[in-house]
Amino acid sequence: MTKNQRDHGGGLDSAIARFGGTRIGWIDLSTGINPHPYLLSRLPPDAWTALPDKAAEADLIAAARQFWRIPDNAHIIAASGASALIAQLPRLVPRGSVTIPAPTYNEHAAAFEAGGWDLTEDNSADAQVVVHPNNPDGKLWTPDTLPTRDATLTVIDESFCDVSPSLSLIVRAGHPGTVVLKSFGKFWGLAGLRLGFLAGDPALILQLGDALGPWAVSGPALHVGTQALRDQDWAQTTRQRLAEDAARLDARMQIAGAKVLGGTTLFRLYQVDDAARWQTRLARHQIWSRIFPYAPNWLRLGLPHTLHWPRVEAALA
Amino acid sequence: MTKNQRDHGGGLDSAIARFGGTRIGWIDLSTGINPHPYLLSRLPPDAWTALPDKAAEADLIAAARQFWRIPDNAHIIAASGASALIAQLPRLVPRGSVTIPAPTYNEHAAAFEAGGWDLTEDNSADAQVVVHPNNPDGKLWTPDTLPTRDATLTVIDESFCDVSPSLSLIVRAGHPGTVVLKSFGKFWGLAGLRLGFLAGDPALILQLGDALGPWAVSGPALHVGTQALRDQDWAQTTRQRLAEDAARLDARMQIAGAKVLGGTTLFRLYQVDDAARWQTRLARHQIWSRIFPYAPNWLRLGLPHTLHWPRVEAALA
Repeated sequence: MTKNQRDHGGGLDSAIARFGGTRIGWIDLSTGINPHPYLLSRLPPDAWTALPDKAAEADLIAAARQFWRIPDNAHIIAASGASALIAQLPRLVPRGSVTIPAPTYNEHAAAFEAGGWDLTEDNSADAQVVVHPNNPDGKLWTPDTLPTRDATLTVIDESFCDVSPSLSLIVRAGHPGTVVLKSFGKFWGLAGLRLGFLAGDPALILQLGDALGPWAVSGPALHVGTQALRDQDWAQTTRQRLAEDAARLDARMQIAGAKVLGGTTLFRLYQVDDAARWQTRLARHQIWSRIFPYAPNWLRLGLPHTLHWPRVEAALA
Repeated sequence: MTKNQRDHGGGLDSAIARFGGTRIGWIDLSTGINPHPYLLSRLPPDAWTALPDKAAEADLIAAARQFWRIPDNAHIIAASGASALIAQLPRLVPRGSVTIPAPTYNEHAAAFEAGGWDLTEDNSADAQVVVHPNNPDGKLWTPDTLPTRDATLTVIDESFCDVSPSLSLIVRAGHPGTVVLKSFGKFWGLAGLRLGFLAGDPALILQLGDALGPWAVSGPALHVGTQALRDQDWAQTTRQRLAEDAARLDARMQIAGAKVLGGTTLFRLYQVDDAARWQTRLARHQIWSRIFPYAPNWLRLGLPHTLHWPRVEAALA
């Protein structure tokens, strides 16, 4: 295996090794993936067998444009997951210094460091990355609060913004040097499908197209993604359900002694006395959670599937 | 749409626009994809919903190592299609001059050009790319016939080598600066799945891992790829069937006045009096073929599905 060993939470395999049980028996709340995925329809057989065709890709892009209201003066491209796009971002402009306000999703800093960039907290950096809403604390950004106004490259990662579309900064995708990242796997609950989008400055998006090569998105992802992005009703119903479930989890956690720090309705961040001890306690009930090496009092929980609520509530009682 | 408009054959959509019919009614022989795909088994639901897990990725890599007999001193990485890997190859070493013996699959030259490399026919180039067997003529390479011995980067594209594994140059994956490309979509007939591999110099493969980011391969691709690569019987049966079908197509084409120039048993290259006229003639039967702007007498045909032989033979009669 050649993959870098960065901390992505997850680690359900090592939890199983430590606490026993089987994959199917565990409730994995260590990610922010919607546990009620968009329903897979029957795929046309040639989604698997043929090279993904241009018409299907055009349909996906059109659906994405409409769903996210991409400004006309921005381009948009699809890739096999937001991670594939994050890995390419440091190559879009000449390397220099980048500011990535911490704490946040650590893959951004890792990608820029691997690309030879200097991480800085200086507000005169050449590039800036903000996650909006931020992971794990849910912090929101506005055009006025961005770290710098003079960046050559501005990345706005809206991976978790589909639960609150009214907060989206997508209009910024029309600004020079700006790109906005969209994830499909999280809100639609299909992380294994691998689908993500980048909208923004046409020159940067064109360059990215060369870096990704042709047929970047699988036939199944083209098909499912197009259907899902055309389905505003599902999105609206899902937002409401996630909001209700987030409130329910907050209530249970508060009764159990935790304080709500923030998050989004796809994951919640809590302050607890000893996060490692909480993780162990939940793990004894085969529920996996996320803790952070840099914040010993922070516990992050994704939302349980409807069928898993009784076990989660029993574990917290 | 932001994708480059390179000539990849295909173009079935424009054939339909010109000659009528529907996608499902056409026989597409313009690619070199096995028309009898590896049978999809039922996927576990979490192949779609969960982030692709490390254990599943380790299984895929182990199966690939064994299937292709990757040398112990080489690393191997999986990506969402051979194209995603081709697009990254020019970034593995400092840019310079590259020799890519023509004619061949044009995505290699396009990727190096997009990366700012100089294409040269000089045998002192910094990098070299050979397609083995070559597309479209089937030309084979040996370590002795490579364009240069002193390249910093040597790419051996074995996308079509699984029909003749005894010819593989995979042992070269253990050489410094050398990488060998493997495609899953063609031989296994699942081009829409998006799965490809690169084996070679550990330093280059590690670097590529950073460029691709985590979770590069979808859950379905991990699952199907592992099964298929463990299935030597299917591979052996498929090689035999493809060899028989290639011989059958050659015979029909020779009777129809074409001369066999070469190819592999996934596609055949023929010399004809006027390739554009042949393409039109076949298209009137809703059979799509591949012609080449640089060789007006070359016609390339993929192999028909068993059910399509009668129509193909009628069109050639």
